[in-house]
Amino acid sequence: MARALQLAERGRWTADPNPRVGCVLVRDEVCIGEAWHERAGEPHAEVLALRAAGGDAAGATAYLTLEPCSHYGRTPPCADALIEAGVARVVAAASDPNPRVAGQGLERLRDAGVAVAAGLMAAQSEALNPGFFRRMRDGRPYVRAKLAASVDGRTAMAAGESRWITSAAARRDVHRWRAASSAIVTGVDTVIADDPALTVRDVDGDWLAPRRVVIDTDLRTPPDAGLLADERGVVLIHGGTMPAREAERVHAGAELWQVAPGEDGHVSPLAALDALGAADINEVWLEAGSRLTGAWLQAGWVDELIVYLAPHLMGHDGQPLLTVPGLEAMSDRIALRWQDVRRVGDDLRLTMTMRDDAEDG
Amino acid sequence: MARALQLAERGRWTADPNPRVGCVLVRDEVCIGEAWHERAGEPHAEVLALRAAGGDAAGATAYLTLEPCSHYGRTPPCADALIEAGVARVVAAASDPNPRVAGQGLERLRDAGVAVAAGLMAAQSEALNPGFFRRMRDGRPYVRAKLAASVDGRTAMAAGESRWITSAAARRDVHRWRAASSAIVTGVDTVIADDPALTVRDVDGDWLAPRRVVIDTDLRTPPDAGLLADERGVVLIHGGTMPAREAERVHAGAELWQVAPGEDGHVSPLAALDALGAADINEVWLEAGSRLTGAWLQAGWVDELIVYLAPHLMGHDGQPLLTVPGLEAMSDRIALRWQDVRRVGDDLRLTMTMRDDAEDG
Repeated sequence: MARALQLAERGRWTADPNPRVGCVLVRDEVCIGEAWHERAGEPHAEVLALRAAGGDAAGATAYLTLEPCSHYGRTPPCADALIEAGVARVVAAASDPNPRVAGQGLERLRDAGVAVAAGLMAAQSEALNPGFFRRMRDGRPYVRAKLAASVDGRTAMAAGESRWITSAAARRDVHRWRAASSAIVTGVDTVIADDPALTVRDVDGDWLAPRRVVIDTDLRTPPDAGLLADERGVVLIHGGTMPAREAERVHAGAELWQVAPGEDGHVSPLAALDALGAADINEVWLEAGSRLTGAWLQAGWVDELIVYLAPHLMGHDGQPLLTVPGLEAMSDRIALRWQDVRRVGDDLRLTMTMRDDAEDG
Repeated sequence: MARALQLAERGRWTADPNPRVGCVLVRDEVCIGEAWHERAGEPHAEVLALRAAGGDAAGATAYLTLEPCSHYGRTPPCADALIEAGVARVVAAASDPNPRVAGQGLERLRDAGVAVAAGLMAAQSEALNPGFFRRMRDGRPYVRAKLAASVDGRTAMAAGESRWITSAAARRDVHRWRAASSAIVTGVDTVIADDPALTVRDVDGDWLAPRRVVIDTDLRTPPDAGLLADERGVVLIHGGTMPAREAERVHAGAELWQVAPGEDGHVSPLAALDALGAADINEVWLEAGSRLTGAWLQAGWVDELIVYLAPHLMGHDGQPLLTVPGLEAMSDRIALRWQDVRRVGDDLRLTMTMRDDAEDG
C-alpha cells in the first residue's frame, strides 16, 4: 500500500479535479502491474495496472489507495474491470467519499466474490487528497493560505514596499504550491495594489494551470489589470452590485460569478467556497492581503496556513501579517497547530492547521 | 579535544565569570585524568586533571579547550603546573583572549620544552564562552535578547494582556537560559508594567544566580518594586538625573550605577554594556519590552535573538514584537541569520544572530 501511495503521489500535479490514486497488483508476492491516475478523462489507476499485468491478473491481489469507482463517469467503472480480470482480493485504503461511489464499489466487488479489505493507511490516502475528500463531503474546497513576513510579523514596509521579503527559493516553492492547486484565489485589493499575474512560473514537469480567481464584491478589478489582459482566463466572484451588462463590458474576458453578498455586504468566504466547490475546485491556494486572509482565517475557512518567515526585522511601522479585528482577550486568540517547519532557501516555512478550541494544547 | 569540550560544558552554570574549560590528560592512548573548571576561585581544569593523574602525568599529552593561564590570579598559573608535572605535549583549542595571558601561557610551555599545538576545535571552545571572549576582547558582554510572540508577531493583546503567550515548557526553557547567564537585564518600563522577579525558578542542579539589572535612566523604578524588596540585590543603571542622596533613599537596597546618558538623554546600550563588562559580566540575558529590545537591536548591540513563537494568531491590534523606528525602505531592514530552530513544548524557539550587511545572503 505504501508503494501504491507513492504512485498516487505522482498524480499530484495533473489528476485534478480527480483524486490522486495509485494501484499495485501482486500475485505470489511479485508485483505484476502498477499504475497511478494521471489525468481526468484518462484511464484510472486500476485499469492501467490491469493492462500492465495482462492475463496475469487472474487470482492477484489489488492494493488501491481509494475504493474503485462503481459508476460510469468519463470512464467505465473500475470495480467491473477488476472483477472481469479475475482479481481475487482487493485491499483499499480509503472509501471513496464521492456519494456516487461511497461503498458501492467495494460492495460490487464483494457481490462478485472478490475478497475485500478496507482502511489500511486510509489517513495517508486522504492526506494526499484533502481537497477531493473535502469537496465530496461538504461541497467546498480545502484552503491553504500563504503569507510571507519578517520575523517580527511584517509583510511590507509602511509605504508598501515588499519586494522581496523572501528568498528566490521561497518564491519558487510558492510556484510549486500554485501548480499543485486547483485555483489561486486573491482579493481585489491585491489586484489593485500589485497587479499580480497569479500564474505558475519556473516549475518543471507536467502540471495543470490552476484557475485564477479574484474575490471582488463590487467588481473593482481595473479594466487594464494583467489578469484580464492575458488569455489564461480569470474568474471574478462578485456580489451583483454592478449591472450585468456593464460588468460584461468592463471585464471582457473574465468569467463573472455572482454570489449573494454576506451580511456585511462583502462576498463571504462561505459563498465563494460554495461557488468554487460547485466548479470542481479541490484545493484553493489563497494568496491575498492581510484583510482578506484575516477574514477567512477568523471565519474558520482556512484549513492550512503557510507562512514564509524571512530572517529580517522590519520594525513596528511595517504592515501587519494579518488584519483580524475584535481580538481583545487572550482567549480570543486563533489557535494553530504546527504541522511542519522547514528551511526553504534563506527562509523558514511554517505550516500550521487550525486548532479547535475544544482540543488540548 | 571533543571530550575536553564536553567536560568544559559542565561548567556552563557555575564557572562564571571565568571561562568554561575542560582538560583531558592522555598517556599511551589512555585517559589518565580529566576535569573541568567548575567555579571561580576553585582550581582550574588543568590542576584538577593533574591531581587525578597523579604521578602518571609525566610524559603525557594534555588536551585543553583554552590556553593555560600564565599569571597569578586567584590560583597559581596552570602553565607552571603542567610543566612541573612533566607533561610532554599540550594541545590547546583556543588561545586565551585575556590580555594577561594572550599567548604567554603557550609561550611559557614552549620555553620549558613542552611540545605545543593550538587551534584544534578553537571555534567550538569560543562558542562555549561567547561572553568571556567578548569581554576579554572588547570589555563588553555578549548579549542574548529574548522575546515571545504569536505567529503574527504580537507580544500582548491591545490592552496589555499577555499571560501566557508561550507554553510552560518554553517558560522553563527561559529559566534555564537565565541560570546560564551572568546577568538578566530589563528596562524600567517592564519593571513598572510587570513587576518581574527576574529570578531563576524550577532549574535543577547547581547554578550561580545571575545579577539582576534594570536600565533606568531617570530612576523611575517604583520604591515598592519586588526587585527592591527581596534580598537578591538589583542594579539600577541610571543617568544621574536624580540627586544621589535622594536616589539612595528611594532605592534603598539597590546598587546604583551612574553612567553618562547618550545624545537622546537615555542610558545608551554602549554605556550600559561598558558598565556591565567592567563588573565582569560575560553573558547578558536581555528580557525587556519592545522598545528597549528594539533600541539595542537597532544599535547593533544584540548578538543573539531568541524568539519563542507560539502557535496562535493575536491580530493586528496586538502589541508589536519590536519597536524599531525609522525603518522605511526594504534596505533599512535588520538582517538576521538562523542559528537554530526547534520545538520547545507547544512553541517554536528561533535562535538568530545578527547578519552583517556586507555578508552574502
